[in-house]
Amino acid sequence: MAVHAGLLRTSTPGSGAVVDLTEGHGDRSPGGVQHGVVTVFASGATVAVTTIEHEPGAVADLQALLDRLIPAAAEYEHNARNHDTNAHAHLRAALIGPSESIRSSAARSPSDLQQVVLLDFDDRPRDRAVTVHVVS
Amino acid sequence: MAVHAGLLRTSTPGSGAVVDLTEGHGDRSPGGVQHGVVTVFASGATVAVTTIEHEPGAVADLQALLDRLIPAAAEYEHNARNHDTNAHAHLRAALIGPSESIRSSAARSPSDLQQVVLLDFDDRPRDRAVTVHVVS
Amino acid sequence: MAVHAGLLRTSTPGSGAVVDLTEGHGDRSPGGVQHGVVTVFASGATVAVTTIEHEPGAVADLQALLDRLIPAAAEYEHNARNHDTNAHAHLRAALIGPSESIRSSAARSPSDLQQVVLLDFDDRPRDRAVTVHVVS
Repeated sequence: MAVHAGLLRTSTPGSGAVVDLTEGHGDRSPGGVQHGVVTVFASGATVAVTTIEHEPGAVADLQALLDRLIPAAAEYEHNARNHDTNAHAHLRAALIGPSESIRSSAARSPSDLQQVVLLDFDDRPRDRAVTVHVVS
Repeated sequence: MAVHAGLLRTSTPGSGAVVDLTEGHGDRSPGGVQHGVVTVFASGATVAVTTIEHEPGAVADLQALLDRLIPAAAEYEHNARNHDTNAHAHLRAALIGPSESIRSSAARSPSDLQQVVLLDFDDRPRDRAVTVHVVS
Repeated sequence: MAVHAGLLRTSTPGSGAVVDLTEGHGDRSPGGVQHGVVTVFASGATVAVTTIEHEPGAVADLQALLDRLIPAAAEYEHNARNHDTNAHAHLRAALIGPSESIRSSAARSPSDLQQVVLLDFDDRPRDRAVTVHVVS
């Protein structure tokens, strides 16, 4: 068995951007991993990781859902105490969570429309680091 | 140390079915694992994994909660763009996420009423594959 | 490569308590881990694990959010069937999930305000066990 670790870096516009971490990898795993289980972790308290069918409709629906459940414009203690504006981003990130572990692509069906995505909830553009860790 | 991987296959009725992945395993781990940490991942964009006390009340409450937070009958871009009907299933799956990592059963208390469950949100019966990966 | 496993024990007041699992560890990893990926799992059906900036505002906002989305005082099947009072705790735990996998602290920035937290939703004080598992 073997362990491989890597770091993906990506710049996002924030504001709920849904970034496909598997895009551009022919095998549809973050980091191009061929076998095993891939653990994906996003650093930062206003960013989250999940899976979704990354098509414009589902992406728009997910953004609308989170805008409805956790509105940006409500009153929040985090904003009041810290003279900040992104409490909603912290809450959305905590609810969804920063990590998922997925089966690597070599064992997956090409017809499986389930991409690993980074959700950047902060209210400004951010540079993000995603740790990809494989045990195979 | 060792790594073990397996695949569970299960057929579900969909429509929010909550399937106990530990049922029938005397040691209450998916796949019958004895030691270590077990990572469970469900393939598919309309399915999720979490833990719950798998009794009829909590299961019904979880289904009712998701029906309330993410109704099936609302207007969704995914449905409009793709002539589809299961946008709510995609959103519920993305919110809960496709994976969890749990302590294997040998180290757990028999009185611990916390089962690993697959949630199938699609609006039709589905055959599902769950990857179980153990590092011990 | 190596695998390390440990168990953290903590007592909480319940009622939505948000316990920083990294507190007191200079390197800000649960269990004092230096390298690799750390998987954190909380045992129990009314407890969850996520990450958040552990400051009083964000913590209060997360508690208020869950009180709003999943009120304690609503009618629940779990409570009716089991003469119980903590159905909301089961639902909150299932929604957030019991595990996350994070990059260990040695590789993280000291300015990264993202702590691993245990959320205890039960409606009474509890003793909790958290499994920490590292592959490095």
